Amino acid sequence: MAPDEQAAPDVEDRLALFTDLYELSMLQAYFEEGLHDSAVFTLFVRRVPERRNYLLACGLDTVLEQLEGLRFSRADLDYLAGLDRFSDCFLQWLESFRFTGEVRAVQEGTPVFANEPILEVRAPLPEAQLVETLIMNQIHLQTVQATKAARLVTAAQGRDVVDFGARRMHGLDAAVKGARAFHVAGVASTSNVLAGKRYGIPVSGTMAHSYIQAHDDEAAAFAAFAGLYPETVLLVDTYDTLAGVRQVIDLARRLGDRFRVRAIRLDSGDLGQLARDARAMLDAAGLERVGIFASGGLDEHVVAGLLAAGAPIDAFGVGTSMGISTDVPDLDIAYKLAEYAGEGRLKLSSGKPILPGGKQIFRRRDGAHFSGDTIAREDESLPGEPLLQPVMREGRRLSGHVRDLAALREHARQQLQSLPPEIRGIEPAAGPYPVAVSDALQSHQAAVTRAIRARHAE
Amino acid sequence: MAPDEQAAPDVEDRLALFTDLYELSMLQAYFEEGLHDSAVFTLFVRRVPERRNYLLACGLDTVLEQLEGLRFSRADLDYLAGLDRFSDCFLQWLESFRFTGEVRAVQEGTPVFANEPILEVRAPLPEAQLVETLIMNQIHLQTVQATKAARLVTAAQGRDVVDFGARRMHGLDAAVKGARAFHVAGVASTSNVLAGKRYGIPVSGTMAHSYIQAHDDEAAAFAAFAGLYPETVLLVDTYDTLAGVRQVIDLARRLGDRFRVRAIRLDSGDLGQLARDARAMLDAAGLERVGIFASGGLDEHVVAGLLAAGAPIDAFGVGTSMGISTDVPDLDIAYKLAEYAGEGRLKLSSGKPILPGGKQIFRRRDGAHFSGDTIAREDESLPGEPLLQPVMREGRRLSGHVRDLAALREHARQQLQSLPPEIRGIEPAAGPYPVAVSDALQSHQAAVTRAIRARHAE
Repeated sequence: MAPDEQAAPDVEDRLALFTDLYELSMLQAYFEEGLHDSAVFTLFVRRVPERRNYLLACGLDTVLEQLEGLRFSRADLDYLAGLDRFSDCFLQWLESFRFTGEVRAVQEGTPVFANEPILEVRAPLPEAQLVETLIMNQIHLQTVQATKAARLVTAAQGRDVVDFGARRMHGLDAAVKGARAFHVAGVASTSNVLAGKRYGIPVSGTMAHSYIQAHDDEAAAFAAFAGLYPETVLLVDTYDTLAGVRQVIDLARRLGDRFRVRAIRLDSGDLGQLARDARAMLDAAGLERVGIFASGGLDEHVVAGLLAAGAPIDAFGVGTSMGISTDVPDLDIAYKLAEYAGEGRLKLSSGKPILPGGKQIFRRRDGAHFSGDTIAREDESLPGEPLLQPVMREGRRLSGHVRDLAALREHARQQLQSLPPEIRGIEPAAGPYPVAVSDALQSHQAAVTRAIRARHAE
Repeated sequence: MAPDEQAAPDVEDRLALFTDLYELSMLQAYFEEGLHDSAVFTLFVRRVPERRNYLLACGLDTVLEQLEGLRFSRADLDYLAGLDRFSDCFLQWLESFRFTGEVRAVQEGTPVFANEPILEVRAPLPEAQLVETLIMNQIHLQTVQATKAARLVTAAQGRDVVDFGARRMHGLDAAVKGARAFHVAGVASTSNVLAGKRYGIPVSGTMAHSYIQAHDDEAAAFAAFAGLYPETVLLVDTYDTLAGVRQVIDLARRLGDRFRVRAIRLDSGDLGQLARDARAMLDAAGLERVGIFASGGLDEHVVAGLLAAGAPIDAFGVGTSMGISTDVPDLDIAYKLAEYAGEGRLKLSSGKPILPGGKQIFRRRDGAHFSGDTIAREDESLPGEPLLQPVMREGRRLSGHVRDLAALREHARQQLQSLPPEIRGIEPAAGPYPVAVSDALQSHQAAVTRAIRARHAE
């Protein structure tokens, strides 16, 4: 349970209108036509982008929390009435709208691949339809974020990665949910205080240039900050980086045993060269225990390059590139009707195939590593671990569903370690991770296609 | 005033913790050291990305609303106390923390360029420092979004652009604020119902593939939807696009005078060719008045290409590329201390110059178009229109500040029309829009630099 659920920085309790207008238009049509049989919708990503070898599923907990609380407020209904599009009968029906369906999903922190169902909703058609926009928005965001963060963590080879992204991430919700997604993916801490409060994530931070600038000189600023926070990290690049390092060494001489500064931070310039120079200066001054923290324009390739070149950097603060996942800020995620009233459903014309019906993923292992997946029909039993598990029934979360952040983080760590090393790496793998579609599911897809073609040829 | 302020989908009333931990660490240091003189911070973007010729400033209203309501709740203070980092005295001081400063800013919907101040805060140092993360996050997001949307609107040459982005935008806040930013930039309407309710933006939408799939066949789905919404837009690409167009024509024959369908929607395939084929079929059936609405993978270059090739498309639904601004999802935005206690301040080491002190932008016109800007000291008076205007004093919004969305949209339209045509265009301009720094500001920068160097050489 999140430690501070009430102060959620968004609208968990009034998100029924976080939907596209067409969902409500279709809901009214379903209502008028009496289409309220059970539907299965599948959430999946159509392809893994070239610059990713896997996706790390994230965001399920948010979605379930929002589904549980979904309802239309009086103000929502008044607004809808004012659109002159919805009948009084339909709006009355919306007033008692609740999500009463079932959700099966892969656990957060699990790697997934193209066309694999991340989540399946089974509910009366209108309920499963309305929540499309919300489910896509939340899982898309957090999966983009967790995937990028896992790459940074891999590149840092055991060194801490810290989230500095809040100031340039896309809005409040992205920054707060992002801090959680990053932490699941292995990021050590966040600078985002609201996320720390909400999710119990460790918060950390150093000092800004403005603090140094507000003092008459750098030495005075360092002395004052270290006086208040003895184990702090001092930012040395405001005026001249290596002169800043000398100020830190001078401070150490003045303070003697009272000097407990943990690290210096480099935030501009040639980070590799500056880290080597600063390390040499600190070591020569007997300050081997003072670490070097690097930030400023970092992404997984820069981090890997710095470490490959032997830069003596102990931790990385990463902002925009991780926060926005700037190289891959979006995924081709889809939420598609796969079954209605017991019949498989799909689209035909777009070159974007849908796998009909409820589904399961079976993931096989070969020793320490995953060796391949099969996407199957829901009721099949194939070799490997079934990844989709029931997490919500009759609109209520099931107690077995893992929500504890530390447990999710450990799950993600084990999952990432189990990926074939080339797939886990940050460079493009020579080939994709093997994902097959079971014979039964292929036959079902072919049969549904034939049935649709036959009906339209009549 | 937004029509439904109470149902804001974020946390306008409890955002004091939407900050980086280091801001609070510095605040405590300022508190201990008695550094509470007046500071000037400047928000600006360091460079206009290669794929943009200008930036359209947006997000001011959100920021002012949040600054007015900023305070620490009891739960916030309890959380901070639990971090074992802040003294009781400091937490008591935070309890009565309010933003009491002054804000000067360019109006939303105004084009801005590299290094131009979008907003300046003048406030006691701790107040101006705390709000860094929040101000950057909100103006960055909405400026990224408005800039991208303006490009789509330009490319569409007067045809409607509709926001379909909510499902893949980065979270709830990005989707709701984005709909507003898009509308300011000239987008006609949004599919996002919550944004429609909150900001009074027109909402629109058609139907999804799932609606078609849930029916036994496409003809039945079209007939049912058009029965309920006679002036709707029918989605024709679920199974076979041109067969779908024939179903629409059949429906028109069956309904006769009762057929009032406004348009068909194409969402996949070769949109240009399909639009031409569909147009020919509709015209041959006497359905010249049925429009063609295109969506699916559109960005400004695709839109411009379709129209240049003569594709008979009447309106565009744009999702992910506009919602995330996928080609330029972030800007190098900064919020930097420029003055403290009456003295200009800057950084020296990073190759990222700061213009010290309070500033003004003077924008000149030559006939119908802007001809160049000068960034000047705040008290200078130079030719051209001064773009920064007071919008908040003593922590309260000034009544003259434009908040009405229609007025901002009209302002943006006029501003965009006044850009030199090459700068307004979607292709990279041969050279940048001319921006100079006034002699007085250059002299001040040189003097501040000398003073800092002198202090550090002592």
